[in-house]
Amino acid sequence: MALLVVGSLALDTIETQTGSATEVPGGSTTYCALAASYFTHPHIVGVVGDDFPDSVSTLFKDHHINLEGMKIEEGKTFRWGGRYSEDFDIRTTLFTHLNVFENFEPTLPETHKDAATVLLANIHPALQLQVLSQLNGNPFVILDTMNLWINTAREELDEVLKQSDMLVINDEESLMLTGKRNYRQAASKLMEMGPEWIVIKKGQHGALLFQQDNLFSLPGLILDTVIDPTGAGDSFVGGLAGYLDQSGNRSFDNMKLGVIYGTILASFCVEDFSVDAMTYLETDDIEERYDELVMMSQF
Amino acid sequence: MALLVVGSLALDTIETQTGSATEVPGGSTTYCALAASYFTHPHIVGVVGDDFPDSVSTLFKDHHINLEGMKIEEGKTFRWGGRYSEDFDIRTTLFTHLNVFENFEPTLPETHKDAATVLLANIHPALQLQVLSQLNGNPFVILDTMNLWINTAREELDEVLKQSDMLVINDEESLMLTGKRNYRQAASKLMEMGPEWIVIKKGQHGALLFQQDNLFSLPGLILDTVIDPTGAGDSFVGGLAGYLDQSGNRSFDNMKLGVIYGTILASFCVEDFSVDAMTYLETDDIEERYDELVMMSQF
Repeated sequence: MALLVVGSLALDTIETQTGSATEVPGGSTTYCALAASYFTHPHIVGVVGDDFPDSVSTLFKDHHINLEGMKIEEGKTFRWGGRYSEDFDIRTTLFTHLNVFENFEPTLPETHKDAATVLLANIHPALQLQVLSQLNGNPFVILDTMNLWINTAREELDEVLKQSDMLVINDEESLMLTGKRNYRQAASKLMEMGPEWIVIKKGQHGALLFQQDNLFSLPGLILDTVIDPTGAGDSFVGGLAGYLDQSGNRSFDNMKLGVIYGTILASFCVEDFSVDAMTYLETDDIEERYDELVMMSQF
Repeated sequence: MALLVVGSLALDTIETQTGSATEVPGGSTTYCALAASYFTHPHIVGVVGDDFPDSVSTLFKDHHINLEGMKIEEGKTFRWGGRYSEDFDIRTTLFTHLNVFENFEPTLPETHKDAATVLLANIHPALQLQVLSQLNGNPFVILDTMNLWINTAREELDEVLKQSDMLVINDEESLMLTGKRNYRQAASKLMEMGPEWIVIKKGQHGALLFQQDNLFSLPGLILDTVIDPTGAGDSFVGGLAGYLDQSGNRSFDNMKLGVIYGTILASFCVEDFSVDAMTYLETDDIEERYDELVMMSQF
């Protein structure tokens, strides 16, 4: 199987109360593809500037990520800077320099148009629609989005929702989209918007999976320390998409496993700056954390 | 086995955005004992005025609750009035008339002093200490408390903690007591204060159980409607205490079941005003909700 990931590629500068990281790999595609690479072969589509570090491309290649669709343009790579409050409750954006990303128009290489699974990582819904229009066949489409697009591009987002099989959002975004605080009521409304499958992420409190009348609720792992929450949501949906693509099974029980592996990848992501955890994470580590989730949630 | 419950008995007046209830059964003992009665025979110790409705005493007796330790004094029963905001996020106390409860000193009937399980429901820690001083043997002591006592009676509370086997608190109280937001770190600090077992309630996000290095995380049930959250915490600890007393098994696996039954009793409690749900709740309903928890959390 092959997973197509389309989103942003960036260099981030991150400040927390205990440390910082400058010009480190960031962007939704970066996290999504690296997390997915533990399960399947991701193909990424995106744009970077001619200053994009070789070390990051090498990291992608080491993770068997197909870079045919990663365009290198003259100019600078997208930069984002942010600072977190002490408990990571508040994230302040310090700067956003779109650079070459400003005029990004996703163009899928021919070999990518038959992907079995498509992850529309967090970018403008108009770009997500452009991706969908280039696809052949009937891929399983997983949609990620954010509060910004819910507020500023609702019409395009509604159109993407209609064409998606699974929506993955956090509880605040769910409330913004539906006006419903009750998770079951929110999920029903979201299903009416298009996707058969709804995943609502609740941060440290875990995640919920809904399909028809089925519900799965997974508690969050309790981590000893959080170093940098950047990319947690992207790693979650990346791990989930990678697992689903590899297994090719769309039963409710298998989708549960997708949510579990998404949760696990997100948990590793936040334990180090940027994508650092993905530079040393091994499959055994993932299985160990799976066992931890079994221990803490099964009775 | 026998479960001793000591706490408050009251008549509540409750206002929500969709309804109200006047002079209805309330107080920590009332909810705890009724929830526990689905598993064991609770013995309650408390005080009411001579205006305490016969209908409530009858409800207790119908649930096989032993009232030998319920003192009826000349004067009025403790009254409490509260109002909830639309999403039940904020509870405003409208009045508190302690009445006969003002000079309550718990006196245990001889037959109650050998209880196998003691639930110190939410009252002033000085009164909880008086209960502990009257006990024979080595009962399993479960402690409930609240923000008010953490702020105003910390010394007495610390003493009760030293003598308790299990502490059941919510996440805000855990933060107040320990200064730790991280649940694992908070639980370690709480264990150092005395109890071997720590339960941290997270409202709709479920509950955590800690003992030594063991952890159990149960997600919350997703309810269609909440009518009145009064007594949810008391019903939780009551269901938990009742189940543990009846089973008499203090293995980690069995304590998990205690947390599960506590969660279930709390879920029924909030679906109607006051203790109304406990007037028609049947054992089959409890097992049905147990199956629902299995369905939504097991993989």
